[in-house]
Amino acid sequence: MTSLRAIVLLSGGLDSSTALAITSREGREVHALTIDYGQRHRKEIEAAKKVARHFDVKSHKVLKIDLAAIAQSALTDRNVRVPTQRTLEEMGRGIPATYVPARNTILLGLALAYAESLDGDEIVIAANALDFSGYPDCRPEFYRAFEEVARLGTKRGVEGRPIRIVTPLISMSKADIVRKGEELRVPWKFTWSCYLGGEKACGVCDSCQLRLKGFKEAGAKDPLPYARRAQTL
Amino acid sequence: MTSLRAIVLLSGGLDSSTALAITSREGREVHALTIDYGQRHRKEIEAAKKVARHFDVKSHKVLKIDLAAIAQSALTDRNVRVPTQRTLEEMGRGIPATYVPARNTILLGLALAYAESLDGDEIVIAANALDFSGYPDCRPEFYRAFEEVARLGTKRGVEGRPIRIVTPLISMSKADIVRKGEELRVPWKFTWSCYLGGEKACGVCDSCQLRLKGFKEAGAKDPLPYARRAQTL
Repeated sequence: MTSLRAIVLLSGGLDSSTALAITSREGREVHALTIDYGQRHRKEIEAAKKVARHFDVKSHKVLKIDLAAIAQSALTDRNVRVPTQRTLEEMGRGIPATYVPARNTILLGLALAYAESLDGDEIVIAANALDFSGYPDCRPEFYRAFEEVARLGTKRGVEGRPIRIVTPLISMSKADIVRKGEELRVPWKFTWSCYLGGEKACGVCDSCQLRLKGFKEAGAKDPLPYARRAQTL
Repeated sequence: MTSLRAIVLLSGGLDSSTALAITSREGREVHALTIDYGQRHRKEIEAAKKVARHFDVKSHKVLKIDLAAIAQSALTDRNVRVPTQRTLEEMGRGIPATYVPARNTILLGLALAYAESLDGDEIVIAANALDFSGYPDCRPEFYRAFEEVARLGTKRGVEGRPIRIVTPLISMSKADIVRKGEELRVPWKFTWSCYLGGEKACGVCDSCQLRLKGFKEAGAKDPLPYARRAQTL
């Protein structure tokens, strides 16, 4: 039996590395796709490469796109401050400065082109609606809507073999994700989640805090060096 | 009264130049966005610049993205032959080699990011379902599905001010488009439709043929120099 072919959007963070591990464990032929969109935390790209190698993926493509030229965000613009030391309640209030306009729509569009070119069956994206830091494009209904776009807008869709959008982490908490990653032996030391690109993870941006919270609740150890560990969570 | 702000996807071809003219005539504040995705016909980029200047748009952004790295198509790969001298019936048979996987999904995703960053109200795309050369992502239902993605996946959507996807040419024939462009004085001499990037338009690729057919049926004169005018249409 031929295995299904999956294109995994791999940022190199905790979530997408775990999503890749899940997809690999399910017996898919995995093709990783990393989009270098000019994010501040460029360490992610290196992290993605290490994680892809670790899981011995069939292929790994890194595509550069200058998203900063068209999308304003604290993640792509060094003049905008990344919020730090926020409580969960503060994170839940509205959409944060780290929101990148239409980011996941663009990532999925690029993955869709790649999937169709490779005759891939599914696109895996590590979105997560629970600890989602307030991003609108991390909600399940967004992914169902995009799946319809993928069905209607591609040759494969017209041929009745639409490309599925798979969101294995959508209803998991960060602690669930850490537990799953531990089970699948995700090499945490290679992953990078911090929104800033320092030597050590900052420990105080939303992403670091959610990660630290996940490890704490899962009773696991995060091997990454942190500049600070002060948590408001 | 403040006018609505429109982001117009401008390729520099006959269709998108006319869509821009329509949007401008409707009193919108026009921001043109051209995606240089490594298409063979690079003359389009220069055409887009001239057309944008002609209509005195508020801004014009050209964004480069190496689509050839992830999407196989005759338009981005010089090793794939662009079909020529096809009849309308042949064009209607299946999806042609010039189909770029997920192209319009990617273009709309990038326009969505740009629209949200500019607080734009609508995205204008010159898709056209009649003489559509068999592309699945030129059908009306695709655009309605993408509008839902835009509503669910953006900050503006969450705030109840979704960005609309506008397709002014969707049910027009090429002749209708030429007539509308004549009425709005679109500078045809600046536009470029040929899939090949030669000195003169080839006259025999699907795009040239549909353009020539449009001018002929509208009883208008195409000022572009053509290498050949042999038509199978």
